[in-house]
Amino acid sequence: MNLTVDAERLRADVERNGEFGAVPTERGHARTVLCGTDANRRAREYLIEQLRGADAEVTVDAVGNVAGTWCPPSADSDAAPVAVGSHLDSVPDGGIFDGPLGVYAGLEAVRTLQDADARPERPITVVSFTEEEGSRFADGLLGSSVAVGHRSVDDALALTDADGTTLGEALSGIGFRGEGRLDPSEWGAWFELHVEQDTVLESAAVPVGVVTTITGITHCEVRIDGEADHAGTTAMDSRTDALAAASELVLAVERAANEVTATDSASAVATVGSLDVSPNATNVVPGAVTVGIDVRDVRQASIERILDRVRETLARVERERGVETTLERPFDLAPTGMSDRLRRAAHDAGAQAGLETTDLHSGAAHDTMHVADATDAALLFAPSRDGISHNPLEWTDWDDCAAATRVLAGAVADATGVTSV
Amino acid sequence: MNLTVDAERLRADVERNGEFGAVPTERGHARTVLCGTDANRRAREYLIEQLRGADAEVTVDAVGNVAGTWCPPSADSDAAPVAVGSHLDSVPDGGIFDGPLGVYAGLEAVRTLQDADARPERPITVVSFTEEEGSRFADGLLGSSVAVGHRSVDDALALTDADGTTLGEALSGIGFRGEGRLDPSEWGAWFELHVEQDTVLESAAVPVGVVTTITGITHCEVRIDGEADHAGTTAMDSRTDALAAASELVLAVERAANEVTATDSASAVATVGSLDVSPNATNVVPGAVTVGIDVRDVRQASIERILDRVRETLARVERERGVETTLERPFDLAPTGMSDRLRRAAHDAGAQAGLETTDLHSGAAHDTMHVADATDAALLFAPSRDGISHNPLEWTDWDDCAAATRVLAGAVADATGVTSV
Repeated sequence: MNLTVDAERLRADVERNGEFGAVPTERGHARTVLCGTDANRRAREYLIEQLRGADAEVTVDAVGNVAGTWCPPSADSDAAPVAVGSHLDSVPDGGIFDGPLGVYAGLEAVRTLQDADARPERPITVVSFTEEEGSRFADGLLGSSVAVGHRSVDDALALTDADGTTLGEALSGIGFRGEGRLDPSEWGAWFELHVEQDTVLESAAVPVGVVTTITGITHCEVRIDGEADHAGTTAMDSRTDALAAASELVLAVERAANEVTATDSASAVATVGSLDVSPNATNVVPGAVTVGIDVRDVRQASIERILDRVRETLARVERERGVETTLERPFDLAPTGMSDRLRRAAHDAGAQAGLETTDLHSGAAHDTMHVADATDAALLFAPSRDGISHNPLEWTDWDDCAAATRVLAGAVADATGVTSV
Repeated sequence: MNLTVDAERLRADVERNGEFGAVPTERGHARTVLCGTDANRRAREYLIEQLRGADAEVTVDAVGNVAGTWCPPSADSDAAPVAVGSHLDSVPDGGIFDGPLGVYAGLEAVRTLQDADARPERPITVVSFTEEEGSRFADGLLGSSVAVGHRSVDDALALTDADGTTLGEALSGIGFRGEGRLDPSEWGAWFELHVEQDTVLESAAVPVGVVTTITGITHCEVRIDGEADHAGTTAMDSRTDALAAASELVLAVERAANEVTATDSASAVATVGSLDVSPNATNVVPGAVTVGIDVRDVRQASIERILDRVRETLARVERERGVETTLERPFDLAPTGMSDRLRRAAHDAGAQAGLETTDLHSGAAHDTMHVADATDAALLFAPSRDGISHNPLEWTDWDDCAAATRVLAGAVADATGVTSV
């Protein structure tokens, strides 16, 4: 297929989007676009303008998910559309590529097919999901979780930010509380292009990655109760030190992940990312500690094996140190395999365009995890310089953006039944 | 010596003092008497009233240390007085004994000598030091540190609370910013009675403890810098996890203290009481950790041995984990031996009154540490139920309060040259 991405047009959109919520920074490019803020409104309005400019019909659902559908004369308007997109919100001081690249690459795929006079047999829908980052309403992948029915519209709208403002109020405030629910089960396929946020592509000098599996993610919250005592008057053998017990847990988590990567699954990772001590005074033996653990792998069995080690460690510190422990598992996403058909389409599109592609897994969560529960889904990666993201130094070379968009456009074309142009 | 403490009078003073800053509590007795507050003013004014009622001449120095001197006709008014006291301030929701018992036991010792028509050859000065707890101006043992010249009056008055109010302003506000500097080097001896805050006396069923040595105390602040990374996309072997390194340190501190107590000095203790993680998010590999370490023993060599192990551990985690570390030692008090002469006087006073006394060390810091740099000093302990203090459940039986005060009065009498009454 002779598809030519307009790299400058794509760059202009991503750069223009990066101006909404832009934050002055000494190095790199920073933006803060929290869901339901004025910066988010401007980013959404600019997107809708561009979608309409590409002959797309725009809808906004009850949680603010934006969809723009181009239904060319060649398409059966009743055929399940091929959807493509990502998100426009950012973390505080985030980069300009994480999310917007996928949205505007989706739009650019449509324009590329239009420029090539391609004749898709299905409509193409460009999507921007609400609150992917979870930076304001504390729950990531929110718009996609509602779309696929994992969470009700009412529950989502009732989520509050730190000031008590609900998602519903915030969306109404910017004019983006629409109606109905975007329904991915009606799509024939879904593609998301995202920056890799790791260095696999950069190290291999390959411009496009095709994700095989999105890692499963489990978060555990562990509470360890000991006894707060005077650090000066409590003899070593009279203590029940919650932090010493927690330190054993931190090291056990690390050791368990190292063992699993060495034996079962090289992609497994486990992290104690948060630890809070009470009362947290230098001269008081710690009475209680809460610990947040993040465990991920493309194999659920690896996650469970690491969690088994966590539970064994807790049982041991209870026995040996006299602490009491509890473990909750508030967040649990199973590993999600990507569609073989769509992955093949992506590799084929790369081959046709003379662009190298490679298989890799995703260690980060993406809206595609949810969408994959409703329809065939694929996730493509563009290289991230030094693997940095959620940071003003996040960067993907414009050539790499265009290359990945070219592969995306080819794969979308394939999925819409375009065989030649 | 036939000295009879008025247990009810002592109890009435301690209970009355416990009403200032009283906090409603379900169990026990709570008070919050921060330095320079209205509750502190009322406690000070009540003390002065009682001192004057016992024919004492009252002075207030530039940092609010209160001293009431009784100079009976039998005394040489130029002779170095014997001083006795403690402090009236409390931690938030503190108990009613920690501090006030020592102040009012000092006053009760004076009254007891007066009731017995004793003829001291030296004046007796009852003292209440300012800001012993350090709960408002963040620096404990403050009044005594100024008195002995470890800290200048001006430096002390410039200390600020969390709202930016200086100690000078706070003392002026309650009318307790006096003049001059109380000077313990002019005292012939110093006694402090305090609640034990541990269970040695309770376990041994002995009503009075005579402190041999006040523990040395070192605080270290350690910073460990690793690299904050995405918990999902950063492979186990690509991490520089500051919290994993810090966990090794926590366990090394505990291990070092256990070894020292098993071999060199049973009284040694070491605690990692505070630990702060940055950015402290479950899904981010910890980039930096700060750790507060408290090391104490009656032998300085034990403290240094534990610190050596801390440094070795930091060198090892730098080498093995690639983190960077710094260690500061912002607080350092050497172990302080108590006066043999005054300790003997206390034991003798117990024997004469038929009250058992026992030697023990103090694992907590007290104003007496500073005073001992200027004159002979002694520290007596009354039993603490379950060792609890800094807590509404802090409790010392009234009989034990009276017994310890009886020993205190006898020892003071001895130090003032009273041989019989």
